[in-house]
Amino acid sequence: MLHTNLAVNEKGHLTLCGADTVALAKKYGTPLYLLDETRIREKCRTYQRAMKTYFSPESKPLYASKALSFLGVYRLAKDEEMAVDVVSAGELYIALKAGMDPGNIYFHGNAKTVSDIRFAMDAGIGYFVADNEAELCRISEYAVERGMVQHVLLRLTPGIDPHTFDAVNTGKVDSKFGSAIETGQAKAFFMRARALPGISVDGFHCHIGSQIFDEKPFCDAADRMMGFLVMLRDELGYTASVLNLGGGIGVRYVESDPYIDIDHTLQLVGAHLHRICEETDFPMPQILMEPGRSLVADAGVTLYEVQNVKTITGYKSYVSIDGGMTDNPRYALYRSRYTVMLANRARDDADFLCTVAGRCCESGDLIGEDMTLPKPEEGDILAVLVTGAYNYAMASNYNCITKLPIVMIADGADRLAVRRQTYADMISCQL
Amino acid sequence: MLHTNLAVNEKGHLTLCGADTVALAKKYGTPLYLLDETRIREKCRTYQRAMKTYFSPESKPLYASKALSFLGVYRLAKDEEMAVDVVSAGELYIALKAGMDPGNIYFHGNAKTVSDIRFAMDAGIGYFVADNEAELCRISEYAVERGMVQHVLLRLTPGIDPHTFDAVNTGKVDSKFGSAIETGQAKAFFMRARALPGISVDGFHCHIGSQIFDEKPFCDAADRMMGFLVMLRDELGYTASVLNLGGGIGVRYVESDPYIDIDHTLQLVGAHLHRICEETDFPMPQILMEPGRSLVADAGVTLYEVQNVKTITGYKSYVSIDGGMTDNPRYALYRSRYTVMLANRARDDADFLCTVAGRCCESGDLIGEDMTLPKPEEGDILAVLVTGAYNYAMASNYNCITKLPIVMIADGADRLAVRRQTYADMISCQL
Repeated sequence: MLHTNLAVNEKGHLTLCGADTVALAKKYGTPLYLLDETRIREKCRTYQRAMKTYFSPESKPLYASKALSFLGVYRLAKDEEMAVDVVSAGELYIALKAGMDPGNIYFHGNAKTVSDIRFAMDAGIGYFVADNEAELCRISEYAVERGMVQHVLLRLTPGIDPHTFDAVNTGKVDSKFGSAIETGQAKAFFMRARALPGISVDGFHCHIGSQIFDEKPFCDAADRMMGFLVMLRDELGYTASVLNLGGGIGVRYVESDPYIDIDHTLQLVGAHLHRICEETDFPMPQILMEPGRSLVADAGVTLYEVQNVKTITGYKSYVSIDGGMTDNPRYALYRSRYTVMLANRARDDADFLCTVAGRCCESGDLIGEDMTLPKPEEGDILAVLVTGAYNYAMASNYNCITKLPIVMIADGADRLAVRRQTYADMISCQL
Repeated sequence: MLHTNLAVNEKGHLTLCGADTVALAKKYGTPLYLLDETRIREKCRTYQRAMKTYFSPESKPLYASKALSFLGVYRLAKDEEMAVDVVSAGELYIALKAGMDPGNIYFHGNAKTVSDIRFAMDAGIGYFVADNEAELCRISEYAVERGMVQHVLLRLTPGIDPHTFDAVNTGKVDSKFGSAIETGQAKAFFMRARALPGISVDGFHCHIGSQIFDEKPFCDAADRMMGFLVMLRDELGYTASVLNLGGGIGVRYVESDPYIDIDHTLQLVGAHLHRICEETDFPMPQILMEPGRSLVADAGVTLYEVQNVKTITGYKSYVSIDGGMTDNPRYALYRSRYTVMLANRARDDADFLCTVAGRCCESGDLIGEDMTLPKPEEGDILAVLVTGAYNYAMASNYNCITKLPIVMIADGADRLAVRRQTYADMISCQL
């Protein structure tokens, strides 16, 4: 199986974290998101332990909650003593509702509004990851008004291209995010920040992209960022105490994706950082990283019911399901690849080549092309694996299709964490 | 200006349907959808008049509501005596809530579930546009159970490629929709449908794609579809009474898009249909068409507030706004092109080349690249034109960003039709 939390039971049914997915489809209806809570907890602990061990005792992961944000996941983060990053006042609102300590929250984004900033500062948020000067001025102004000092990290673009898909490639110089080291703008941004009242610049942030499967791009980013930190120390006498290397550790979606050993990868990055610090005589900063997808993706499985199978003579076969781009727009957006199975016939030979199509009135609404399944029949339960990240988070009501529930599974026991949206919920803002 | 409902007033402000957009941004806040109701009514009447005149007295447009579906637009459709097509039980629910006659509703989709079908039949829906045999069997079974006859049209793929973008190109043979004429499967589908109890096949449907700017693809589709109808008459003695040619009439998003004269285009298609009917001695069927985008797109404008402007030395400039792919995912999905303006400085020279970026933490969240504006400043109101279709309809809560309100404008007077989603609304299903 693709991940160790997946198995097939004696009935030939797919299980997630020991729970029979076919029984869950029957209990809660389809389409349905499942989320393996145990898996997420394990991953949180792996990151926490590795970063503490290989980087420095105060180094830690922040859960990049844009991958999946709802009350239940923030409660889990709180329980695991995770800090989180949020990218909007909406995410912050949910994190606070779930009881998270605002001091453990880092606020991201390239276009924070005045009301976002005020909401976050009134809540007592720990850090802003400040993207640009306009925003810094807003933070400074409100900090002065409140008679306080706001801690910030400054977002930089280190000019690293990890050769991932363009839409999620954010570390190169030409980016809507941050200030570029290469152009000298990062230094100017820092000097401007230092001159503003009510602001404490504690360090810097970068994010180089997504689906990175080895340590190299992180080491490259560390080189550039540490180079910048050393330059600031040497030229301006400023020693940063925090370095946030962002997220991007890859996830295995299909058999041909590599398996990534998170602990080992972090060990290599840690060794590299220690080497740089030794060579430059720089005190090891607190290292932050922002796993999002990496913490939750393989905890998720989506279950659908097969509605019909259509073979176009001389062309190909389409398997239509009762969900699609409204609950998982990643194929439509990025041509993302997924692994599919028939959850109720998980041992049958997957010898039927097909396109799995969503139910939206749009040709681009597909889960994937050239997929293999046992030949499906109406009523079969189709499972899409590794859907924990950027599925619920990106869901829409396109075609007026209601949003799915999320069932969380911990040690084989299931509970509803998000209920199925009703039509009345969906139109509650329509007058 | 791009469309006749747009103008610039004495203050240099952009107006929509005579209403000052800057005043509306102030009154309702940003980001904000505006919708010119007067424009939509005019368009409905144009289609109704043209189809009655050029096709046959009983021919009519169906509003393809997937382009924009909420209570207000269905009330408007009802008021204009428009029939509508829906693509889900959710759209049907809203149309019924708005008081539409179910007999005027056509139900589309490639994966209608058993509960969709029962909900629609219990509501007394006029027609299903049946996509496949599995669905037909479900309809037949329930019709027999209810002791009724359900009217259906059968969806066919005529094998026309109007050379539009793949994701919205649905008329070619290799499609998740319908049955192909070319492969002989359409005829088999028809024969199967005729053999099922409780089903009345009144005619056929096709949809060849989107953003079509001349009559040619529609005439080609009419050739194929009428050829099929004539074949059925000659071989099987069955004369279809309804031919639905689908939607797809183009909309002008940017200056370089052609202007389309809907009346004239329909006149040409009508003349072509009359010629075919004469040549084949076939009685002119009731012609249906399904304008969606074409009815609502140019009625819409979205207003944003500029948050910051960032110029990367040697690269380019980014203008970040307080919305983006959550309210308009069309650039992220299709690289769609839009026209932007500064609503509060609508007469200033647009000499600043930039990328307009959304606020999501994702590099692909852009409104467009290589756009020109007067050099924006923080607080300027940025208007994206022609956003009436597939914007609100496709909106998400990605990054936990709340959905925008819709303000409708009729003859210069504004009223709130959809209120701004609150954080509490957004998480109402989270337990």
